[in-house]
Amino acid sequence: MSAAAQQALGPGSGLVSPEINPDHSVTFRLRAPKAVSVQVRGDFGPVGQMREEQGGVWTYTTEPLEGELYSYNFIVDGQRMLDPSNVHLNRDVATWTNIFTLSAKEGDKGWYYEVHDVPHGSLSYVWYNSPTLAKLNEKASFPRRLAVYTPAGYEDNPKAKYPVLYLLHGSGGDEDAWLDLGRTVQILDNLIAEGKAKPMLVVIPNGVWFNQAAPGAAINNFQPTMTNSRSQSTAEVEESFPDIMSFIEKHYRVAKGAANTAVAGLSMGGRQSAALSLHYPTRFGYVGMFSGTADPDANADAVAALFAAKPKLFWIGVGRDDGVRVSSLKMKDYCEAHGYPVTYYESDGGHIWRNWRVYLTVFAQKLFK
Amino acid sequence: MSAAAQQALGPGSGLVSPEINPDHSVTFRLRAPKAVSVQVRGDFGPVGQMREEQGGVWTYTTEPLEGELYSYNFIVDGQRMLDPSNVHLNRDVATWTNIFTLSAKEGDKGWYYEVHDVPHGSLSYVWYNSPTLAKLNEKASFPRRLAVYTPAGYEDNPKAKYPVLYLLHGSGGDEDAWLDLGRTVQILDNLIAEGKAKPMLVVIPNGVWFNQAAPGAAINNFQPTMTNSRSQSTAEVEESFPDIMSFIEKHYRVAKGAANTAVAGLSMGGRQSAALSLHYPTRFGYVGMFSGTADPDANADAVAALFAAKPKLFWIGVGRDDGVRVSSLKMKDYCEAHGYPVTYYESDGGHIWRNWRVYLTVFAQKLFK
Repeated sequence: MSAAAQQALGPGSGLVSPEINPDHSVTFRLRAPKAVSVQVRGDFGPVGQMREEQGGVWTYTTEPLEGELYSYNFIVDGQRMLDPSNVHLNRDVATWTNIFTLSAKEGDKGWYYEVHDVPHGSLSYVWYNSPTLAKLNEKASFPRRLAVYTPAGYEDNPKAKYPVLYLLHGSGGDEDAWLDLGRTVQILDNLIAEGKAKPMLVVIPNGVWFNQAAPGAAINNFQPTMTNSRSQSTAEVEESFPDIMSFIEKHYRVAKGAANTAVAGLSMGGRQSAALSLHYPTRFGYVGMFSGTADPDANADAVAALFAAKPKLFWIGVGRDDGVRVSSLKMKDYCEAHGYPVTYYESDGGHIWRNWRVYLTVFAQKLFK
Repeated sequence: MSAAAQQALGPGSGLVSPEINPDHSVTFRLRAPKAVSVQVRGDFGPVGQMREEQGGVWTYTTEPLEGELYSYNFIVDGQRMLDPSNVHLNRDVATWTNIFTLSAKEGDKGWYYEVHDVPHGSLSYVWYNSPTLAKLNEKASFPRRLAVYTPAGYEDNPKAKYPVLYLLHGSGGDEDAWLDLGRTVQILDNLIAEGKAKPMLVVIPNGVWFNQAAPGAAINNFQPTMTNSRSQSTAEVEESFPDIMSFIEKHYRVAKGAANTAVAGLSMGGRQSAALSLHYPTRFGYVGMFSGTADPDANADAVAALFAAKPKLFWIGVGRDDGVRVSSLKMKDYCEAHGYPVTYYESDGGHIWRNWRVYLTVFAQKLFK
């Protein structure tokens, strides 16, 4: 036995899966000699019935696909399972799926989600104490985890100050969601390298005010927190948000002021972003509401105060098939009726990460210019 | 549809699995109504035959277990699958398994691997350029990813300088291995909070000299790199290691000198640690060879030079059933025959992460004192 051997070192499955073919179709393979029926279920098309070939290896090949990050899993005799040949996984709330990225041509969506030979920013998981949430949670202190992206060059330009995007996840998510499912690091690295986005910090807090960190990273938090009325309340997030901003402004070289500060989020985080901009009308020069909601009629004074402060951008993104589209349109229509400038971006599809990655890619290019 | 809904939000499996019972036995559950045979295979005991109960839910309960981090998966009609009720996974080389920690009493092994209500250090993924590896890989530049743990208090004590442990992974691993499988953050947070280890930085490089980062984090690296003669060579690691140390000493508040510098690693990383200490006899005051090998007969002059520099600690840890035990003993016996002080730690078991977590826990308490 060599010193090289390691606990689970082995041949893996011995199969290549997924395999991206020259025409951008994708072939999946699974060895399951005892199985009667094997399917691949992914977000690239209808459920694929896999066909058994020699050696008990089941295969399926898709149609040619466009550039994108795709998710899938196998169904073996009715039982969902992951692809043992693919080490790349994402967790969405409580469910793990395999993922792969595909770029059909340079600069397509999938290209932005991949790692390229460009300067890479750093990613840090840091802890801050929230005195406000300590009080609301009836604790002496309440340390919470933040993910902080600093762009390439941050460490080597010790006098430079950078604008900040605060990026908020949806219900069931945590401070990992925008990184794993959202591909924030790859999108920012690529956009900044191309000169399409300004170098900026991206700060990803945990958006559930009674949680301290993602499952497993905090004491007494082992399972994802599903939607409930406590996590849907925005009041605690509004009240405690200055604790985050103070920590960031103290520990990072940050360009302050609304012209250098953006807040955006998806779904629950979109609602929080809108609420934060209304609660602090002079703090955020850029607001992104991705598949989010706001109630302008009930907050007419706050909406007026926000737009009196002349934010550089109030950006609303939603999918044509998204259940919250009506609420997004309500905010858009209200603002337009009152002469408040908003930018509206409507995509295909529904309430899905595929859209939120696009919204981040589009929104990030409009910031701090 | 509420703004709270999210793509994969759902009830999950609706089962609790694993469930740690009051007597520290553990119950596993899987819903598999069509299955004929379901097993749970874990590192806590022999394969468990699960029993079908009502509603197609299969269950199995272990004997009472001691405190530890355990890994397991299910086998459904011969097909390996993960537990859909447990979001906690570890990847070892190319294989994902579910994990859970169990603490049978405060301060046992499992306790150190869990998150407790103690001050938490930060963890950063940063990129450095290695001019040496650029040359060896025939590239213009060669950016590589490092994981850096900074202890609690680092950010709030801007004048303090900290000692550094360089921690090296094994073959098939990468800069994530000591974090995910090794529980480095939890072990250090807990030891430092108890005053059992000094506050220190832990720097975890990628130990494969022709790779830039873990699979998926670097361009053109999608699958784990298995053992081969190129990755087993230590010459490139020796030659390029100053690039890492220079970067760390430039970008972090580091106490320099051998008395403040440790290097340790497991398996391939144990071999690299020994090789680095022989190559740079005055740079590392603390050396940890975990399930590693060295050839003192072929390097008698280097061994003499190392011990002439009077390292504070040369620590050799290995399991009684480890295939490399003979090689570890060879180094121990050679040093003792020559009057060179080494510390030898022999555990039960073999070439496994369960041992390496213990070795880190023991070794970290001996550093910088």
